[in-house]
Amino acid sequence: MLLSQINDPSDLKKLTVDELPILAEEVRQFLIEKLSVTGGHLASNLGVVELTIALHYCYNSPRDKFIFDVGHQAYVHKILTGRMDRFDSLRQHNGLCGFVKRCESEHDVWEAGHSSTSLSAAMGMALARDLKGEDNQVVAIIGDGALTGGMAFEALNHIGHEQKNMMVILNDNEMSIAPNVGAVHNYLTKIRSDRNYLRAKDEVEQLLKKIPAIGGKLAKTAERVKDSLKYMMVPGILFEELGFKYLGPVDGHDVEGLIEAFTQANNVKGPVLVHVLTTKGKGYTPAEKDSIKWHGISPYKIESGQVLKAVGNPTYTDVFGQTLIELGEEDKRIVAVTPAMPSGSGLIKFSKHFPDRMIDVGIAEQHAATMCAALAMEGLKPVFAVYSTFMQRSYDQIVHDICRQNANVMIAIDRAGFVGADGETHQGVFDIAFLRHIPNIVVMMPKDENELRHMMKTALEYNDGPIAYRYPRSSVPGVQLDEVLAPIPIGTWETVREGEGPIVIAVGPMVQVAEEAATTLKRDGIYLNIINARFIKPLDEKMLLQLAKYNRQMIVMEEASVAGSLGSAILEFYAEQGIAGLDISLMGIPDRFIEHGSVKDQLREVGLTADKLVENIRGFRAAQKFAYTQKNQ
Amino acid sequence: MLLSQINDPSDLKKLTVDELPILAEEVRQFLIEKLSVTGGHLASNLGVVELTIALHYCYNSPRDKFIFDVGHQAYVHKILTGRMDRFDSLRQHNGLCGFVKRCESEHDVWEAGHSSTSLSAAMGMALARDLKGEDNQVVAIIGDGALTGGMAFEALNHIGHEQKNMMVILNDNEMSIAPNVGAVHNYLTKIRSDRNYLRAKDEVEQLLKKIPAIGGKLAKTAERVKDSLKYMMVPGILFEELGFKYLGPVDGHDVEGLIEAFTQANNVKGPVLVHVLTTKGKGYTPAEKDSIKWHGISPYKIESGQVLKAVGNPTYTDVFGQTLIELGEEDKRIVAVTPAMPSGSGLIKFSKHFPDRMIDVGIAEQHAATMCAALAMEGLKPVFAVYSTFMQRSYDQIVHDICRQNANVMIAIDRAGFVGADGETHQGVFDIAFLRHIPNIVVMMPKDENELRHMMKTALEYNDGPIAYRYPRSSVPGVQLDEVLAPIPIGTWETVREGEGPIVIAVGPMVQVAEEAATTLKRDGIYLNIINARFIKPLDEKMLLQLAKYNRQMIVMEEASVAGSLGSAILEFYAEQGIAGLDISLMGIPDRFIEHGSVKDQLREVGLTADKLVENIRGFRAAQKFAYTQKNQ
Repeated sequence: MLLSQINDPSDLKKLTVDELPILAEEVRQFLIEKLSVTGGHLASNLGVVELTIALHYCYNSPRDKFIFDVGHQAYVHKILTGRMDRFDSLRQHNGLCGFVKRCESEHDVWEAGHSSTSLSAAMGMALARDLKGEDNQVVAIIGDGALTGGMAFEALNHIGHEQKNMMVILNDNEMSIAPNVGAVHNYLTKIRSDRNYLRAKDEVEQLLKKIPAIGGKLAKTAERVKDSLKYMMVPGILFEELGFKYLGPVDGHDVEGLIEAFTQANNVKGPVLVHVLTTKGKGYTPAEKDSIKWHGISPYKIESGQVLKAVGNPTYTDVFGQTLIELGEEDKRIVAVTPAMPSGSGLIKFSKHFPDRMIDVGIAEQHAATMCAALAMEGLKPVFAVYSTFMQRSYDQIVHDICRQNANVMIAIDRAGFVGADGETHQGVFDIAFLRHIPNIVVMMPKDENELRHMMKTALEYNDGPIAYRYPRSSVPGVQLDEVLAPIPIGTWETVREGEGPIVIAVGPMVQVAEEAATTLKRDGIYLNIINARFIKPLDEKMLLQLAKYNRQMIVMEEASVAGSLGSAILEFYAEQGIAGLDISLMGIPDRFIEHGSVKDQLREVGLTADKLVENIRGFRAAQKFAYTQKNQ
Repeated sequence: MLLSQINDPSDLKKLTVDELPILAEEVRQFLIEKLSVTGGHLASNLGVVELTIALHYCYNSPRDKFIFDVGHQAYVHKILTGRMDRFDSLRQHNGLCGFVKRCESEHDVWEAGHSSTSLSAAMGMALARDLKGEDNQVVAIIGDGALTGGMAFEALNHIGHEQKNMMVILNDNEMSIAPNVGAVHNYLTKIRSDRNYLRAKDEVEQLLKKIPAIGGKLAKTAERVKDSLKYMMVPGILFEELGFKYLGPVDGHDVEGLIEAFTQANNVKGPVLVHVLTTKGKGYTPAEKDSIKWHGISPYKIESGQVLKAVGNPTYTDVFGQTLIELGEEDKRIVAVTPAMPSGSGLIKFSKHFPDRMIDVGIAEQHAATMCAALAMEGLKPVFAVYSTFMQRSYDQIVHDICRQNANVMIAIDRAGFVGADGETHQGVFDIAFLRHIPNIVVMMPKDENELRHMMKTALEYNDGPIAYRYPRSSVPGVQLDEVLAPIPIGTWETVREGEGPIVIAVGPMVQVAEEAATTLKRDGIYLNIINARFIKPLDEKMLLQLAKYNRQMIVMEEASVAGSLGSAILEFYAEQGIAGLDISLMGIPDRFIEHGSVKDQLREVGLTADKLVENIRGFRAAQKFAYTQKNQ
């Protein structure tokens, strides 16, 4: 085994170029085996085996900086930098992170999870290098999907202008997580499909010789013709026009060819873009055949490629997708908009039912949000379907275009709350805090899938501005579904359990957690009163005023940052009303980033569990009793 | 006067093409005169006089949709759509808005204030049109500066792919608010500087005829050569490669030429980009000569071009710029990064002192923020200088790249709070709410310019992660400046006035407002205790615990959205500590967008004044007395 000799990139450099394809094969087998047990991002990592080997062979990490866009395609990099033995714990609580992680290795110099940040990072590192008078190389590795994100273009525009030495590797696999869309994609396809471009060069030179010598007025024009031939020989004219030297396309599974290209690129002054063609899932047939499915995969049987998924309830995403079709049938104004997540957002079936009414804009959350505002202002009913964490990219557009213009946009916020194995870059825990202060918006969260369906109906019938419903990544509890969907009155909460005891105001899945606690506490003779705070904004002010009169212990429980979320809204409301003296405590996510693990691990870590709720209530009781005793001594 | 006959675009169409240049001249005089009294965005509007006339002449608004990017260059559009008589109230409280405003006219179909949204809006409107089976034209008018914003590229990428009929007018004035930077700008310059491109076409055809007939192996290559000549004749190849039909460049001050180009564009199937060359400030010499200064201008004398500015204290921006130079002298690691606002952010002098250490990335807030994270991680001390409202564009990058990686980025947040005449699109009132819930960040606001300087020193010496200081748009109070800058201990507040009475916790300029109120209340024998909450995050927990013990009326006062800002943080803290029963009220900005006017108007509108504070305190006292009386009856 060559692989077992590699503890560090320096070991890699001891191999001959001929040995590298053998190493690549070993890495591939390692990935296929390990991920069959842990699951993870298989297809993208199989695609970059040779690319990563060639990079570490040609450059000196960490002196030279490798910046992996998105960062989920860094498994090979992890293997080559001494983390092979940690792959059994991949994406698990306290285990190896599925993304680049600086605390794991000095070779991890930049962390990501969201796409399209690598070019800006590389530019920053190149600038810093030059200001410090150093001379290391900076290499950004970015996929064709990520390239369409607006911030990648902002960086290209700046890099092309500044002309710092740096290298961009365009890892073109014709895919982001979804089939790629957009003009840039079409452009790349053109290059891919005509690899003869470069070969034509010689022929062109022959042809040029046949043009008779030209003088006088036409001389300048002849010069132009020659110049313009450059466009024919250089397929990457789009990048050349932006100030890059373009090299490629290069076969991304030919290590020797890659090494040659990187060596050539290293001699270029100014920014260079190496266009590398790779195949997602390379070397493992099931993943090659369906790279979307195998993008992020659960454990599987290696031989058959059969995925070992626990059979269970559908997810909230499934229910959303199905319900949107039902609503789409009855209301032709509904248009679904997704930023490159048709599958992840459960919209594949919808797109088959209504091909004209499902718009995938590529990785472009900003454009998606603003376009939705315009669709709404023209009388349609757009649904902006987006993961909570990626919606962060469209915060300004939600403020400035959607809410300020009070456009009737429905926002379907998927992956709200903890997301599990993807970890801190992907947690959907800030959206309540960053939406709640924006005027005009309504924000809801259902306690179960039946309520989600009613909320979707509520959103559709609401015509007074933007309205969002957020739902978790998890499976649904599996409750009975109502046949008829009816809108829920805006800003009304629901008492799900009447009780004489402490009041729990719970959001979404926390309603169920509170119910569990209620069952335990009943044994102590404590009868929880549980409120389903299905509207995060506006609040149910009438109910809050009523609850205040009881003057009992109140606990607000939400899978969201304590800072700025529902609990904070309730405190503001009581302050505004001049109601003081209530015992309100907030259970939510503390002021730190929560790492990867299972959702259960994450909830336990922050104390969003029935046990913790029980403990809080018992503790409060004990403290009260103590105070009472003291007072009466 | 032709202008006086135009009450509606239909009146415009009654004029002959020959009369349009005369009308243009009248519009120009109107603008120069009116704005000499009110101030406003003069230069950009003088640049689009002919362009706007030609648009309204060729198309039928509001059936055809005009979408003005940024929207401050829509004055001519307002003049032509019946709002001429309202220009005396331009940008004033309850007056004509300086931006496109739907409530003003049916011809205003899309509002903006932030740049680069127009293409997404146009795409949404084109999609909606096709889904509804209508056939109107959609026209986006976007400047070359705004084109570099990432979301504009996201839209271009999508538009080029979808091939809907629509028109993009690239209003190329070689300027955004600052001299333009970036590869796209360089590209456009190349086109501008070589207007012979189109003329070469005939010559090329002659040349082609001279190439001998070619058969066999070379035939295909010859075909390629002819194809490639297209690149020579079409200067806009970058746009063509992205799927647009490119027309231009067209002289933007030749109405007839514009009408011809628009007519031609209208016959194109799919998206067309018309490249129009305009001169900012056209027709008014002072504005033509210094279009940056004349971008947004105060009242001026028409003949001399002398700007009538009230002589007063410098602004916070000035103090920031000056102090950064001082700090930059002593610490070579400081690098200033601005997204196209070198002048607005007070960084011109800094850039002259340290040309290598001032980086203008163009309109690219996302890229700027992430690049700062990378600079910080390489040991530099980047200052991301940004307006509060534009920082909204980099919310995700602040969460995901800066705060999650705990990078030592300093964020200088200018225009925090109300901004006056620019109105609701530009208010800097959400940043506390959208930063406060992000882990790892420190957020400060100074009560005066002296404290701002100390805060800048504090930020520089802080090495534990991101740290932001926010400051208002206004002039400074004019206090004495300390000679030696000393860091303020993180998370400590300052008692600026000791008193036995109600406690006011004030942020930034509200400290001064509270002082005013204190003077008034003293006469009633009420002695305010005023706290300068100079750290918004972290809170001064020690002081808050101490204040709680006094159990007196507490008022939190901040020029920021009540929802989610400092008041809310204080309520959360007390809830976490289990401290109930305090009378805390929050004075801040209510849950709605606040329109244009003076900052004073805006503060009065929301009740952030000394009078209102006095009233609140007296009211509270009266209520207490009433309760006391009732109790004792």
